Amino acid sequence: MKRAVVLLSGGMDSATCLALASAEAFEVFALSVSYGQRHVVELECAQKLAESFRVQDYRTAEVNLRLFGGSALTDEIEVPKAGPSCDVPVTYVPARNTIFLSLALAYAEVVGARTIFAGMNAVDYSGYPDCRPEYVAAFEQMANLATKATVSGGQRMTIATPLMQLTKPAIIEAGEANGVDFAMTTSCYDPRANGAPCRECDACRLRRDAFAALGKRDPRETLFE
Amino acid sequence: MKRAVVLLSGGMDSATCLALASAEAFEVFALSVSYGQRHVVELECAQKLAESFRVQDYRTAEVNLRLFGGSALTDEIEVPKAGPSCDVPVTYVPARNTIFLSLALAYAEVVGARTIFAGMNAVDYSGYPDCRPEYVAAFEQMANLATKATVSGGQRMTIATPLMQLTKPAIIEAGEANGVDFAMTTSCYDPRANGAPCRECDACRLRRDAFAALGKRDPRETLFE
Repeated sequence: MKRAVVLLSGGMDSATCLALASAEAFEVFALSVSYGQRHVVELECAQKLAESFRVQDYRTAEVNLRLFGGSALTDEIEVPKAGPSCDVPVTYVPARNTIFLSLALAYAEVVGARTIFAGMNAVDYSGYPDCRPEYVAAFEQMANLATKATVSGGQRMTIATPLMQLTKPAIIEAGEANGVDFAMTTSCYDPRANGAPCRECDACRLRRDAFAALGKRDPRETLFE
Repeated sequence: MKRAVVLLSGGMDSATCLALASAEAFEVFALSVSYGQRHVVELECAQKLAESFRVQDYRTAEVNLRLFGGSALTDEIEVPKAGPSCDVPVTYVPARNTIFLSLALAYAEVVGARTIFAGMNAVDYSGYPDCRPEYVAAFEQMANLATKATVSGGQRMTIATPLMQLTKPAIIEAGEANGVDFAMTTSCYDPRANGAPCRECDACRLRRDAFAALGKRDPRETLFE
């Protein structure tokens, strides 16, 4: 059985990624990262998702990105609530995806997985540089020079980003078609203490608009009524 | 003053890198990584080196690579003492340099450094895939698509590896010429509880041979007499 590492944040995109990897009959090794994020509730969601898809193994790597700060998600910077800006938003976490993919690469190398699934999306996204297809292609190329297999002539490493060109509503449809219960996912950057979404940050807006476009109600909303 | 992040392991190579960055008049932000390494004494050395070169800032990131294991440095695998093998040795830590450079990239982005110094060397080295120049070039290319500056048209990120083509004796000479006290550095993969080198692992052999080639005694040896 072919193996894959799936980066699992607990959000909608990585949940759909997990579902797609499972549907493609990969033996899944799921990886979350506890990095000092403000929205740590996402790790509870990630664990539930990993259990619901009966992954082969689920691990949480710890790396405290508050050491560097520089983001509204890891520092004393307010999460914007006034709608999207034109620039890279302050919720961007410096080098986060590079660090996550690097950890996934270590995990993949150790368990012998040659595919890493990650939920980057360049359509309905927040304008982060490390979500663009050219970035992912460059990471893949670097990964194929980084590991032992590349010296010993092993199989190539692939960074699979099946959501890259999907709209957010299409991601929801793909997830639902493959068994994701979106009530188990969270998107909010600034949730309340009980995990309830703020309904005002960019991530909440994108999520609400996506369910609305499908004429559906977000199943997570019912959890907090 | 131009800023640089210097990856500082506490070994000879990164110490020389730190000295070269300082000599080039960079304002230095030094970064060590506590990753569950067997030879944790290197972090004490790194801190002393950072102090001796009066860096602008020194941080230690924590990321437990024992979570993945798969290396003699992070797992219950014995450090080989019988001399170098032809393959990538078991002291190779999966994706370690990729993870370290990614953390350095985050730090660099936050403090506005556009240069990352790393002590990779492809001459007197252990055959690790992530020490080769083609790997470093690929990481640099990826880094230049990963960060906010690459979207807003900022200055390019450079991964500086000034030791890449130096022999180990030449690294010692470059370090000494630029103020490194090699007694503050450690190389051993499997040190004793008091930090003394085992004198048998590949790293100890490379270090001993290098000082011998210069007709010198390793100044660290006197610490444990």
